[in-house]
Amino acid sequence: MNLLDYLPTIPDFPKPGIMFKDISPLLANQTAFSYAIDQLHELSTHHDFDYILGIESRGFIFATALAQKSKKGLVLARKPNKLPKQVFSENYGLEYGKDSLEIQQDILPKQSKILLIDDVLATGGTLIAAANLVKKSGAKVVGSLVLLEIFELMGRERLLNENIPSNALIKI
Amino acid sequence: MNLLDYLPTIPDFPKPGIMFKDISPLLANQTAFSYAIDQLHELSTHHDFDYILGIESRGFIFATALAQKSKKGLVLARKPNKLPKQVFSENYGLEYGKDSLEIQQDILPKQSKILLIDDVLATGGTLIAAANLVKKSGAKVVGSLVLLEIFELMGRERLLNENIPSNALIKI
Repeated sequence: MNLLDYLPTIPDFPKPGIMFKDISPLLANQTAFSYAIDQLHELSTHHDFDYILGIESRGFIFATALAQKSKKGLVLARKPNKLPKQVFSENYGLEYGKDSLEIQQDILPKQSKILLIDDVLATGGTLIAAANLVKKSGAKVVGSLVLLEIFELMGRERLLNENIPSNALIKI
Repeated sequence: MNLLDYLPTIPDFPKPGIMFKDISPLLANQTAFSYAIDQLHELSTHHDFDYILGIESRGFIFATALAQKSKKGLVLARKPNKLPKQVFSENYGLEYGKDSLEIQQDILPKQSKILLIDDVLATGGTLIAAANLVKKSGAKVVGSLVLLEIFELMGRERLLNENIPSNALIKI
């Protein structure tokens, strides 16, 4: 099965010059989505981890499916002001614009091993911000895993510079 | 297992007077989360459906887990300007503030049967907006299912007035 058949490219979304990969057809096709999750699960077994950290919002989808399949707890990195209680915050630049991510201060046990999950690796800014939140929590990032890596944006290199091993099911 | 043990109430979040139920401890505990999904899956079997519609963003979590367990396709109802291509749009009021939801115009086959999934049923505004998006697509809403229903906000009545059967795993 070629998963790229289910990931059409939409030019100039959300801004001119951005080639957006639409995951909607993949999610809507149960066979294709389950196949993607099976393959991501296989990649995840290269890591020893206690929790999956899912990044809002499309990251929640792959993180949830993988957490269920791996039988691991799911923790959310959310956009600002979405999580109650005390949070750690990280600002980051992304392929189009700026944003920040938050995690609850008491949700990750100290020294627990965390696998970061998102849908796409572009410049790596989002995953590095998520990794910094994990570090602020006193937990350890064991790696990051995405559905799709956009090779030319060199996110993998930036992640390696931060000592975050990264892997992707599909590289374009 | 009493799932409410994993759903602490956070007073005055995100605004004064709102009693916010925090799903984070439930998600982080793999046993509790899997138990919740097993129970939601059991409730979902009362419906005959082709696709699950997950509502951004916490709805994505329960919708994903249920779509995987039910072996059904997953379709996303998203906040404005997040989905590429032509979309249907619905404005709605919610417990705190106003918002709108969008769905891609070509994602749901005509006449397909759709189960709506979200984390919480409060006033019902979000689920009614999602149901309207399904109707605009020419598909049929067979029901809605949430983790948690806040009984006093009377969302269930509003949904019934729109001929949307609703169910919840936990009613408070």
